[in-house]
Parts: sequence; C-alpha cells; structure tokens
Amino acid sequence: MTAQRSAAPGRARVRLLPLLAAVLVGALIWKLPHPEAVEPRAWHLLAVFVATIVAIIARPLPVAAVALVGITVAVLSRTLSMAEALSGFGQSVVWLVVSAFFIASGFIRTGLGTRIAYHFMALLGKRSLGLSYGLVATDLVLAPAIPSNTARAGGVIFPILRSLGKTFGSEVEAGTARKISSFLTLTAYQGTVITSAMFLTAMAANPLAVQLAGRMNIQITWGLWALAAVVPGFLSLVAVPFLIYRLYPPEIRETPAAAAVARAELARMGPMKRSEWILAGVFILMLVLWIFGGALRVDSTAAAMAGVSILLLSGALTWDHLLAEREAWNTLVWFATLLMMAGFLNDFGLIPWFSDTVSRALSGMSWVPAFLGLSLTYFYAHYLFASNTAHVSAMYAPFLGVALAVGTPPLLAGLILAFFSNLYAGLTHYGTAPGPILYGSGNVPLGVWWGVGAAASVANIVIWLGVGGLWWKILGLW
Amino acid sequence: MTAQRSAAPGRARVRLLPLLAAVLVGALIWKLPHPEAVEPRAWHLLAVFVATIVAIIARPLPVAAVALVGITVAVLSRTLSMAEALSGFGQSVVWLVVSAFFIASGFIRTGLGTRIAYHFMALLGKRSLGLSYGLVATDLVLAPAIPSNTARAGGVIFPILRSLGKTFGSEVEAGTARKISSFLTLTAYQGTVITSAMFLTAMAANPLAVQLAGRMNIQITWGLWALAAVVPGFLSLVAVPFLIYRLYPPEIRETPAAAAVARAELARMGPMKRSEWILAGVFILMLVLWIFGGALRVDSTAAAMAGVSILLLSGALTWDHLLAEREAWNTLVWFATLLMMAGFLNDFGLIPWFSDTVSRALSGMSWVPAFLGLSLTYFYAHYLFASNTAHVSAMYAPFLGVALAVGTPPLLAGLILAFFSNLYAGLTHYGTAPGPILYGSGNVPLGVWWGVGAAASVANIVIWLGVGGLWWKILGLW
Repeated sequence: MTAQRSAAPGRARVRLLPLLAAVLVGALIWKLPHPEAVEPRAWHLLAVFVATIVAIIARPLPVAAVALVGITVAVLSRTLSMAEALSGFGQSVVWLVVSAFFIASGFIRTGLGTRIAYHFMALLGKRSLGLSYGLVATDLVLAPAIPSNTARAGGVIFPILRSLGKTFGSEVEAGTARKISSFLTLTAYQGTVITSAMFLTAMAANPLAVQLAGRMNIQITWGLWALAAVVPGFLSLVAVPFLIYRLYPPEIRETPAAAAVARAELARMGPMKRSEWILAGVFILMLVLWIFGGALRVDSTAAAMAGVSILLLSGALTWDHLLAEREAWNTLVWFATLLMMAGFLNDFGLIPWFSDTVSRALSGMSWVPAFLGLSLTYFYAHYLFASNTAHVSAMYAPFLGVALAVGTPPLLAGLILAFFSNLYAGLTHYGTAPGPILYGSGNVPLGVWWGVGAAASVANIVIWLGVGGLWWKILGLW
Repeated sequence: MTAQRSAAPGRARVRLLPLLAAVLVGALIWKLPHPEAVEPRAWHLLAVFVATIVAIIARPLPVAAVALVGITVAVLSRTLSMAEALSGFGQSVVWLVVSAFFIASGFIRTGLGTRIAYHFMALLGKRSLGLSYGLVATDLVLAPAIPSNTARAGGVIFPILRSLGKTFGSEVEAGTARKISSFLTLTAYQGTVITSAMFLTAMAANPLAVQLAGRMNIQITWGLWALAAVVPGFLSLVAVPFLIYRLYPPEIRETPAAAAVARAELARMGPMKRSEWILAGVFILMLVLWIFGGALRVDSTAAAMAGVSILLLSGALTWDHLLAEREAWNTLVWFATLLMMAGFLNDFGLIPWFSDTVSRALSGMSWVPAFLGLSLTYFYAHYLFASNTAHVSAMYAPFLGVALAVGTPPLLAGLILAFFSNLYAGLTHYGTAPGPILYGSGNVPLGVWWGVGAAASVANIVIWLGVGGLWWKILGLW
C-alpha cells in the first residue's frame, strides 16, 4: 500500500513549491477553455482532481491531508455539493479496506504473522532459494487479509530477513550483503509486488480499481479476482525468485542454519495463544465468506466487518488497538476522497468523453495491438509514480475507457489493468511503499535493483499476458 | 461530549454480562409480535437499535466498538443493506463534528486555550465568584469550536482549577477543599453543561439532535441555535454560579493572588505564537462563516473543513496531529452509526407510528401541559443515563414526534428538547463525560453534587422555559 510512505507523519513543515505547483496546475486547467462536449462542472472537477493528484505526487502535505484540502476546494468552488464530496466515506469498498487494515493489525499484534514466517522457514529454509520461497509464501498467505504490502513486507518479512542476515554473517556494514541478504531483499520486494496483484484485498488501491471498473459496468468480485490471478500469480511467484537467483545469485546456497533458527524461534514462541487461534479462525472465515460470498449472499464488506466484530467481541483486539491503527484512518480519508473524485469524473461524463475522443483517433485499429500498447504504456508509466494509488487514480479509468472503446473485452481489460496496477511497482525502489524500507537496508545497489526490476517486469508481463490470457480464455472471461 | 468516557480505551476484557443483556433485549424485541402498522424491517431495526443503545449504556465494549458490531448485525441480519448501514459516514454533520474535533485539538496543542483562561483569570479573578466566572467565560469562548466538553472542562479548565487549589492551599488531602476548590469544581461542571447547550457545535450530540429534527422537517441552523440560546444561556451562566455561591459558598472570598498568578503565567508564556495567531484567525473565520453561512451560501461543514485545511496548509497543525486525535475517529464511528440507525427508524415509519399512537392517547389535551410533561420527563430521565449521546439517540426523536403530534410549535419543540439534551447532564456526577473527571477530584461530596445538580436543574428549566420562551416568542419562533 503505497500511500503509507507518502502519508508518513511527523513533517510539520508544509513544502511550498510542491503546493504552488499543484495550485498552478489546477488553476491552469480551470481557466483553459473546456471542450464543447464537456460540461463546466466536469471540467472544474478535473482541475481539482489533477491538482490533487499533482499534490499527492509532489507531496506538499501527507496524502490524506491533501485529500481533505481537495474536498474543501471542491465544495468551496461549488464544483461539488457537500453531500457529493463526502459520499466516498459511505462507500462499502472503503470500509472493506479499513476493516482489512484492522484485521491486518491482528497479524502483527498477536505475532501470528511472524509465526507463519518461521513455519515456512523451517519447512523450506534448507537452501537459500527455498528460504526465499519461504518468505514469499508467508507474504502470500498474509496477502488476502492485509491490504498493506508495507505491513507484510516491511512489518513481518523485513525483520526476519534482517535477523537471517545476522545469522549468516551477511551484512552491509561488513561488506557481505551479497552472501544472502541482497538476494532475499530483492525476492521479498518482487514477491510482495506479485502477491499484491493476486487478491482484491492485498493492496489498498485494488478496490479502487474495482470500483472504477464497476462504474463502467465491469463487475469484479473478490472470488473472480482471486480465480483469475491464481494461475499467473503462482507462476510468477515461482519464476521471479528463480530469475533473481540466476541474475544476482547469493554466495551462500545451502542454509541449514536457517531452518534450525526457525525451529528454535518457534520453540521459544511456544504454542499458539488464544488470540492467535481466534485470528486464524477469523481469517479462514473471511476467506470462505469472500470466496463464496456470492452464493451465500454475504457482501464482502459485511464479511470483513463481521471479522472485526468477532475480534472485538472475543477481546483478541480492542477498540483501543483499532484507534491506534493510524494507517487505517489515513487510508479511510484518502481512499474515500480519490474514489469520490474519480467516480464523479466518470459520472459527469469526462472519462467517457476522453475515451471516445482517443478511440476515435485509434479507429480502424484492432483491439489486440491497441490494448497491448495501452497496457504497456500504463505499466511503464509507473517509472514516474511513487504510489500505486496516485497512478490508479490518475490513469486507470481513462485507460480502461479507451480500452473498452477500441473493443477490448471488458473483463479482460479491467483485470489486466488492475493486475498491472500492482506488478508495475517492481520497476523501481520507490514504486510501492515497502520499496524505500527494503531498498533502505542498503543490501542492494541501485543499478541492480532497477536491472532486476526491469527483468522481473518482462517476466511478469509475459506470464500474466501470455499464460494469464490463456487461463482467462479457459475461464471464459473473453 | 459524553461518549468520551464510555469509549475510554485500554480495556482488553469484554464484559460478558452487559453483552448478554444487550443481546437478550435485542432478541426479545426481534421475536415480539410487531404491531400491524409497522413493517417487519422497521421492527427488526428497532431490535438492533435498542440492543445497541443497551450496549452503549451497559458497555460490554467501548461505544464505537459497539457501533461497529451494531452495523454488522444490522447487515448480516438483512435488516439494512451495506450501503444503507454505511450511509452515516457520508453525512455532512458527521464531518462537521470530526472537523470541529480537529480544530479543538489546536486549542490544546498550541496552548491558546490555557492562554484564554489566564486572561479571564487576570481580568475577573480578584474574588472567588469572579474567578468562577472567569473559568465559565473561558469555557464559553471555547465552546463554539470544541464539541467535546471533556476537552474544555477536563482538558483546559481542570488543570487550572487544580493549580488554583494549590495556590490557595485548598486541597482534598489537607481537608481544605471547601476553601475554594469545591466551589470552582461545581461551577466548572455546571458551567460546561450550560455552554454545551449554547452552540450547535458545543457538544457532539447536538448535531445528532439537529439531524433528527431535520428528518421531521424542522430546520435548525448553526445561527438559529446560537441566536435562540444566547439570552437564556447568558442568564444561566450568570445565575447558576451565583446560586452555587449561595448554596455551597467558598470559605475564601477575596482572591487577589489568582489574578497575580494569571499575570505571571501569561508573562511566562510570552507573546502569542504564530500557530496561536493562525488558530485564532481560523476560529473567528469559522464563527463568521457559521453565523452568516446562510447568506454566504457556505455549508457549515465546508466552513469547518476550510478551517482544518488552513490549519494544515499553514502548518499550525499537521496531519500527524489529526491522526492522533483518537477522539475524533472514535466520534466518527459511533456518531455515523447512531445517526444512521435513528434516521432509518424514522424513515421506515417507526417513529411516526409511535408518535401517532402516543398522541392519540393524549388527544384532547392542550399542547402546553402535554409538552411541559414531555420535556420534563425527557429532562429528568437523564438520571438513568451516563451519556448525552445515548439519551439523545434513544429519546429525542420519539419525544419530538409526540410533541409535534400534540400540536407543539415545531421549532420550539425541537429547540427545547435539544437544549435540554445538554442541561440535563448537570443532574449527576456521571451525566456527561467531564463529570467523572471533576467529581473524581474529590473536591465535592456526592450529596452536595447531586443537591447542587437538582437546584441548578430547576434554575435552568425556569430560565430556559420562562425567559427563553419569551425570547423565542420575540424572535417569532412560535
């Protein structure tokens, strides 16, 4: 979840130049003569929206503060009514993400996340490649209920990765990072990028994409997402660590000590606590409800809130814990705001107008090359973004609109752009929030990070478009 | 703001008996045969609502946690759709309160609240009666922008009151509380109860009452509330401290030292900081926008959010500060939930049905004695409540409905019940959140607290119904 870094608290200084940039861009668009076919209100909202996105990228203030100011400007400029501007806060999908954040905090607080990691280490950790699969497997297991990849890769995996580095005498300070730490750091990052793409609830901006697709009548449920992602996702999770193993191999290949450490840690932790059992039960219940929600007629947000209710009623989590989950409240504010703005841009007719205009320019082109061009442009544009959310907010809806207008099968277009909204984060060390944490360890030189990122991006694109395309054809999605 | 105490965090244990009580009451109502005229969905919502209110009173969990569970039960029992259940979070009035909480935190953080208190002390503090007026005046000045009377009476006034006790050697431990501390404690409490009644934004449940009245087509704006309350409010603020002075006089009457202390503290604080100036400016801007919002066509929530935006953009408050304002997030959750439930009870026809039924039983009675009986019952029922919010949620709408059905002038009924929703809190030491803090000081014996509470209630009722009634007649409200 990439807003984490951008919303990093504690900066008292407001950065004036970025603020000025956002205001100028917004004012410029506002004043530009708008196309005949676009009503003034839609154009003004575009101005406020683009200014908000510029501010989210340039960051004069944390992202949620930018969102609050954006709402205020939209209302005071009479672009939106107060009720319209606040409508995002009542959206079901917003509370799905907030509830998932609450449940995620349980994995950290109860220690269940760490326990799962040690289990995988004990099982797979005899060789360094296996060890990396153990870390990736932990991330995968946590992904459905933890929409913050920072919590997974930064909160659960990174501390274990560091202690492994110590165990094997592989540390930056000693100049021995290449022994094993470099390799594990790269796989942990590329791994969390892939697991983020595998579940609707694995990354905070995923529900945003789903909601935007929903406004264009493309319905993507939790179960459909997981089903569509499972084949290319597993393949990527196997292939990418192996690719890294080849491209930038660790010096240590055999790691029997790791399995021993894991067993010792598990012994030290003792049997699972009551709160861990409850959390595990809630986690399984939620997965069942999310997968079979359609048949059971249980809304996915209701399922997540039921999970939170059980944790509260059983005392496994307290309300106090949830109040302290600042990232959840943070996400509530920016998510509701972006969802609202992006939604009204569509409802006011701006996205349809844009899609029509672009697709008319592309007329005569078959959808296959057109969508390939669109989706690759969407992917590699992420070199310019330090946040999945900003990228999805700014580009998902217009790109999807154009894709539909040139004749791409709707579900295919919606899903591929949504998957790419996660996979593109592997390109750089700032592509998604855990990047700065893992890169900040110093275990991997910048050139290697970007090189591996580029290679992994090619592998991911080939797997998801190629094998994925075949899989979705079998599923009848296109 | 009374939910503060009930939502007091840090209790890991879930209390089972209160939980059982709430579940049983809810299940009982659910199973009871419902009246012909009431549709099943309305009756089921009543069951969930009453169980939620019982849980808010009996407190198996903090009030916001109860709210989340209540939403979940309403959705899983198919009483409400997910969209209906979350609709409260998009309500303008909810974000008015949240924004006001954010601004309130500025008064504490910047020290401006304390500075104002010392100014009044320096001005009025030469005698103990004047000193008490100084504390009450501070509370009054802060009230429009601080919807938490706990923040005012507990956060700003109480620390000053305690240090005054030390200055005058009036401390519980020494058996000298009666010197001056008892008197100041009682006036601080009764004072904050009155200031809470004077502004729409002075207590968190006030907007709840206004919203419920709005559903019955009674429109109460910020300006109307303040205008209607100003005359009886000022009279009460003058009369009640004087009454306490007579009933339970302080032993020390002359307090020149207090003014000296205040001047010394002001000197120590130095000139106003930049952040205090900004906050003061925002405060005045908001008052202007709230008062003249109708003419300027600025929504009161938009005004509050503009205030928050200015504080963020100027760096006077950071997003980090706002994230740490747990009480704001807390209030967001319980307020949105109660607002939503109480609103749908009305929309589903339950409140109108109840009002019709009761008023038919009262038929033939003139509205004057009927409303007098209703409003006094509403007032003294607060002996049973430890929270303004629970009381307003449970009783405001049905009592207002009956009042209208017997022919009470709508604005009069809506306003009086809303004012009483604050004034009733003076009755006991648990009537509203600062009660436990101030009573907990030990400065006042329980019997005295209740005796003074009863006397103040009579004074307040006479002033607000008598002088108030006249004032509202002059204003043309009835």
